[in-house]
Amino acid sequence: MTLLPLKRAQLERHLPILQWSKTYSRDTLTSDLVAAVIVTIMLIPQSLAYALLAGLPAEMGLYASILPLVAYAIFGTSRALAVGPVAVVSLMTAAAVGNLALQGTEEYIAAAITLAFISGLILTVMGLFRLGFLANFLSHPVIAGFITASGILIATSQIKHILGVDAHGHNLIALVTSLIAHLNETNLITFVIGVAGVGFLFWVRKGLKPLLLSTGMPPRLADILAKAGPVAAVALTTLVVWMFQLQTKGVKIVGEVPVGLPPLSLPSFSADLWSSLFVSALLISVIGFVESVSVAQTLAAKKRQRIVPDQELVGLGTSNIAAALSGGYSVTGGFARSVVNFDAGAETPAAGAFTAIGIAFAALLLTPLLFFLPKATLAATIIVAVLNLVDFSILRKTWTYSKVDFSAVSATIFLTLGFGVEVGVSAGVLLSLGLFLYKTSRPHVAEVGLVPGTQHFRNILRHKVETHPSLVSLRIDESLYFANAHFLEDYLLERVNGDTPISHVVLMCSAVNEIDMSALESLEEINHRLHEVGITLHLSEVKGPVMDRLKRSHFLDNLTGEVFLAQYDAMVKLTPDTVRATS
Amino acid sequence: MTLLPLKRAQLERHLPILQWSKTYSRDTLTSDLVAAVIVTIMLIPQSLAYALLAGLPAEMGLYASILPLVAYAIFGTSRALAVGPVAVVSLMTAAAVGNLALQGTEEYIAAAITLAFISGLILTVMGLFRLGFLANFLSHPVIAGFITASGILIATSQIKHILGVDAHGHNLIALVTSLIAHLNETNLITFVIGVAGVGFLFWVRKGLKPLLLSTGMPPRLADILAKAGPVAAVALTTLVVWMFQLQTKGVKIVGEVPVGLPPLSLPSFSADLWSSLFVSALLISVIGFVESVSVAQTLAAKKRQRIVPDQELVGLGTSNIAAALSGGYSVTGGFARSVVNFDAGAETPAAGAFTAIGIAFAALLLTPLLFFLPKATLAATIIVAVLNLVDFSILRKTWTYSKVDFSAVSATIFLTLGFGVEVGVSAGVLLSLGLFLYKTSRPHVAEVGLVPGTQHFRNILRHKVETHPSLVSLRIDESLYFANAHFLEDYLLERVNGDTPISHVVLMCSAVNEIDMSALESLEEINHRLHEVGITLHLSEVKGPVMDRLKRSHFLDNLTGEVFLAQYDAMVKLTPDTVRATS
Repeated sequence: MTLLPLKRAQLERHLPILQWSKTYSRDTLTSDLVAAVIVTIMLIPQSLAYALLAGLPAEMGLYASILPLVAYAIFGTSRALAVGPVAVVSLMTAAAVGNLALQGTEEYIAAAITLAFISGLILTVMGLFRLGFLANFLSHPVIAGFITASGILIATSQIKHILGVDAHGHNLIALVTSLIAHLNETNLITFVIGVAGVGFLFWVRKGLKPLLLSTGMPPRLADILAKAGPVAAVALTTLVVWMFQLQTKGVKIVGEVPVGLPPLSLPSFSADLWSSLFVSALLISVIGFVESVSVAQTLAAKKRQRIVPDQELVGLGTSNIAAALSGGYSVTGGFARSVVNFDAGAETPAAGAFTAIGIAFAALLLTPLLFFLPKATLAATIIVAVLNLVDFSILRKTWTYSKVDFSAVSATIFLTLGFGVEVGVSAGVLLSLGLFLYKTSRPHVAEVGLVPGTQHFRNILRHKVETHPSLVSLRIDESLYFANAHFLEDYLLERVNGDTPISHVVLMCSAVNEIDMSALESLEEINHRLHEVGITLHLSEVKGPVMDRLKRSHFLDNLTGEVFLAQYDAMVKLTPDTVRATS
Repeated sequence: MTLLPLKRAQLERHLPILQWSKTYSRDTLTSDLVAAVIVTIMLIPQSLAYALLAGLPAEMGLYASILPLVAYAIFGTSRALAVGPVAVVSLMTAAAVGNLALQGTEEYIAAAITLAFISGLILTVMGLFRLGFLANFLSHPVIAGFITASGILIATSQIKHILGVDAHGHNLIALVTSLIAHLNETNLITFVIGVAGVGFLFWVRKGLKPLLLSTGMPPRLADILAKAGPVAAVALTTLVVWMFQLQTKGVKIVGEVPVGLPPLSLPSFSADLWSSLFVSALLISVIGFVESVSVAQTLAAKKRQRIVPDQELVGLGTSNIAAALSGGYSVTGGFARSVVNFDAGAETPAAGAFTAIGIAFAALLLTPLLFFLPKATLAATIIVAVLNLVDFSILRKTWTYSKVDFSAVSATIFLTLGFGVEVGVSAGVLLSLGLFLYKTSRPHVAEVGLVPGTQHFRNILRHKVETHPSLVSLRIDESLYFANAHFLEDYLLERVNGDTPISHVVLMCSAVNEIDMSALESLEEINHRLHEVGITLHLSEVKGPVMDRLKRSHFLDNLTGEVFLAQYDAMVKLTPDTVRATS
């Protein structure tokens, strides 16, 4: 059966797999397979570790790395994005579910699965309704601050596994206090394994590749070996624990991990659970989407490819639904993993599907080998991975560039560390929107004059310009809307108050992109009040869309002065002698 | 003891009474006294009626019209504002308190008093921290829509008293359903009194003054008599009920009203109650403040006086605290009442204090006379007063002027009617902010060219202008910030994509009032991406504050092109032949 061309194009938009699969060749297959092998090696320890971070059984990390990858391969638009459990979303899962149930219980697992399901629904619905633009309301600095603070929280939360003690808390103070309280219970062998793990992984990350290259190894191979560091750490420490039966000496191990493919799972449909998880699911969705889409965009730009944010929402949404239906938990596109996938040569989302097959084999065959894997090793993997996310330079950058951005970032960092991820990121978003609105509510207004020898008008305080005492030209540096309507009224009436030579006021509207109903009423009032004291009100450089709208109101009928195309025309008409004097 | 001049000025700012009392003369006293008498006559039936609307005993309306007026006279800055119970705030009180307790119970009264106290604290604190600007975030159309919808709700809620039946509900559907269900219980005598009351009051409002004037009565006296209409209705119907003992025939009467001055009352300090009332108190505070300050501003403008919004917050805040401490409930400046006060010649807030004395006398002497006052009369007073607030013209006005404003207004009206006052006004505020943010997230971008014979640049789609194929000049009609940073990137790269002759892009920044950190990163990316395809990026007409900030970043070092003072300079430099051709 052949599809009509139109229908086919529509289908391809919703199922990007139909598009790239048309030109799928043997070469592409080879590239994708190589990338899949490398990502699989990287993903196995990460999946286990992030499940641990989320407070879930290790196998759930593996399950979250199988079907979700297949779903993304079908619905996603990025050619290099590698989907699966990631650090920040795992931490947010722990925070959200930890409020409702005790770690290790059936309820906890059920809540995590339901959370992934709700988040998947939210993402899919947002995608279908093309709401991807909503993610733009998270500012870059707020995201940077949030990721940095989350990195610190995550690293701190893993110290308990390195010490081999119990400690809990969703913010830095609670975590540190809890760690200190349990410090005396530190298990020395665990501590040695953990510290050695962290040291080894840091060395692998920084020192191994140069070392291998200096021995004359081909760069590609050196790269793969360096990426396999965590696998080596897992294998080595598991072996050591097994040989010396260290679990009998208090070293905590992963224990039994079920053998087999992911089970079919169903989210709970309890209205109570849904309503308590909804806000968390929304936050996880937005954060996951923003993180994922920014990685995807960066990688796509390198190859002049395009990603479609609204379709990405559907891709991530179906991945999360797939996770919830196959015993996994919330997933998104991971930064490090996607870069590895890209560098390893992945050319289509099929690489993700092949990775899924790799992980499925691991779930079928390798899980018995994980019995003696010490939790300290997984914690070391996490710590080394997330400390890479911590980057305080955003504080310095925003401090020099913009105090508004700086306050949003520092509040996000402070609140995330002090009150946990959900409070932190919500406050960051609200604060950056609030500060933007606050700024627009008190616009910059510049009194302008003519730059001699040109027709250009600039601020009288910054440039040497020509003015005339009977004419006040004010450039309003903001759209006029309800939040600043009163401000303009007060500012203007204050400015002309008692300044007797003034007979004309020109509002230069080059920066006024909008005049809403409230502002229109204020302009009418200004026109009226100026008229009472014998001053004529003019406008200049009113933009097309704004003028169209003004024409639909009675404002122009009542305006005492004129609307000039250019500020220069206003000066020529109202104070011709000024212009003659300067030209 | 004499105060230092500085200290005195400071004190005067916080206690405006010190200012106006300095020049208080016998003439001012006379004017204030006359106004006070008229307002007292008007306020007595209104106070009783609004207390009824709030679901409170009638005397609480009187109490709310004594001490609060004195507090406002001390702390308020408006010379004509008349404070007391008003319709919208009474309805909001009923909605807030009705959620927590049953009308007529002690808990209900205690909650209303506590609500006034919390609202008083919120207002005072906002005033001390100069947060009056927050009220600007309520757009005029949203307020207009809210007031109209509230008027309808209030009028509908009073029909039960006209019919003499029981009916409840905080939204239009619930109210109407409840009324219909009880329609068969209508008390005919009550109905006659109610309908006659409404008819009489409408006639007094529209027809009495012209009639009196036509008999040759002086306008001032005619005005006062017309204002006394509600008092006449109260007196007449009370007399009728007493004469025919209609309360035995099912006509509901006010009944016993305690004689005496307001009692000392204390708000509850239960944390539970405070947390359930806080949001309502905040909404009441903001709505009350906005209503009051707009009346005060309108009246002040007529006499070229100034009101200080932040001090108004303190004035209204202390009034509400005074209400809570003297057995009253939430108050604010009323529109109709303030206009009457102003027209009657009130010159200082002392008129309010004198009104308070008048009401105190009423509470001491007149309350026994109110025993037989039928509730239907009070309901008629309310209905006639609030129908004056209903004005759907805002829908037509915003429909022609701005669809964004229209959607905010219609949502506010619809949600207020359908889900009550709190949902309605919150949604109105959030929606208008959301729509504003949405608009700024997808800015208007105009491709501009030179208007021949000038140095002025306008949209190529709207004006006949000169351009050059190698130069694209884009005027961005919005500040660049996180919410539109991606948009600009996409727009620009899409525009230049495949358009081979382009070698320069100039971003004309006359409407860019701000470039935040996220937008800066986008600009850097745009610069980089254009450079890769051999296009130079320039900026023009960057404003002083924006330029200052760019200079603090590395953007200008990496910019492939230049920053021109004027767009014209850019064209002269980059495509000199175009300019020569046109001049």
